[in-house]
Amino acid sequence: MAEVRTKSGEPAKTAETKRPKRADALRNIEAIIDAATRMLAVDADASLNDIAKGAGVGRITLYGHFDSRAALLRAVADRAIAQSDRQLATLDLEGDPRAALARLLEASWELTHRYGALVIAASQALSPEQLQRVHDEPAARVRALLERGRAAGAFRDDTPIEWQVTVIQAILHGASTAVYRGEIAAEDAPGLVRDTALAALR
Amino acid sequence: MAEVRTKSGEPAKTAETKRPKRADALRNIEAIIDAATRMLAVDADASLNDIAKGAGVGRITLYGHFDSRAALLRAVADRAIAQSDRQLATLDLEGDPRAALARLLEASWELTHRYGALVIAASQALSPEQLQRVHDEPAARVRALLERGRAAGAFRDDTPIEWQVTVIQAILHGASTAVYRGEIAAEDAPGLVRDTALAALR
Repeated sequence: MAEVRTKSGEPAKTAETKRPKRADALRNIEAIIDAATRMLAVDADASLNDIAKGAGVGRITLYGHFDSRAALLRAVADRAIAQSDRQLATLDLEGDPRAALARLLEASWELTHRYGALVIAASQALSPEQLQRVHDEPAARVRALLERGRAAGAFRDDTPIEWQVTVIQAILHGASTAVYRGEIAAEDAPGLVRDTALAALR
Repeated sequence: MAEVRTKSGEPAKTAETKRPKRADALRNIEAIIDAATRMLAVDADASLNDIAKGAGVGRITLYGHFDSRAALLRAVADRAIAQSDRQLATLDLEGDPRAALARLLEASWELTHRYGALVIAASQALSPEQLQRVHDEPAARVRALLERGRAAGAFRDDTPIEWQVTVIQAILHGASTAVYRGEIAAEDAPGLVRDTALAALR
């Protein structure tokens, strides 16, 4: 997306002729990121050529917007992270802490399962700061809920809260790996994640 | 270590003159793998030069035995995997299933913590078969104990056994990551792992 921002910084006299191109470019970038998100989640090694085909754009167009696999992976991960943050921010985490945690776990499972393979595929291309963010923002949300639940006596408070956050994230990622390996069915995962996490916090 | 095996296959007439060299070579290889094991566990990016220094051998000697970083990482991982297997094989897993699982978890924690960062450092250099083995052999050991414990009524059997194996491995790896990040103290980890895993299986 850096290219678009760069273009928008060009002198005003060229803006008129550039505008239709910019709209096309944005549409193509969206289509490429959509296709990459869909395809990399299934096959972390999907080629840029296959992604271009999946997006309905030419190879030259794709390389025009993303000059390397790493650049595309970063854009895909950026969007996945932003969408996850937005989706989790809309959750109702008020009321009974155990029920609120069950809702947070279900939403987190969906995002982990949808984007987990993608983030792994992209992790080579992500900066340490981005990888940190993938971990920290969901952790902060879980931690806030655990604090409230521990204070209310809904969760055990004889183990460190950081450990409880770790266990919840480990269970989510473990479930994603197990589904990916075919050891548990995807439709069973949210229930197993919820029951196991709540059992560990009891 | 492939080099050594190749040398031992050389014609017998050179064996007399080669023998002292072979003993030296074996000692150097051991020293290099020892140093690499120690240093990579602390810093996954430790350089081959630093490892040579740590092993007390010259750069040329190290490159003579391991012609690439990947070759050294594979040797380090091979030995770590073999040592882990041997160590776990000596454990007493008979008697009360919950006590036996506590013993298995404690030993597994030690190995995960000692070798986990190493296996992550080496994972780029490992073949899919080696990575599979890192996962499968410990998983089989846990699964056998869970089967016995489920049959004896010591562990819940209303969730799939593969899920329980996944949760135990996820908790172990989560603990290793949390210690590495400084979120929990290494000396607290075995107790937290044991309590949390047993709570999840109750």
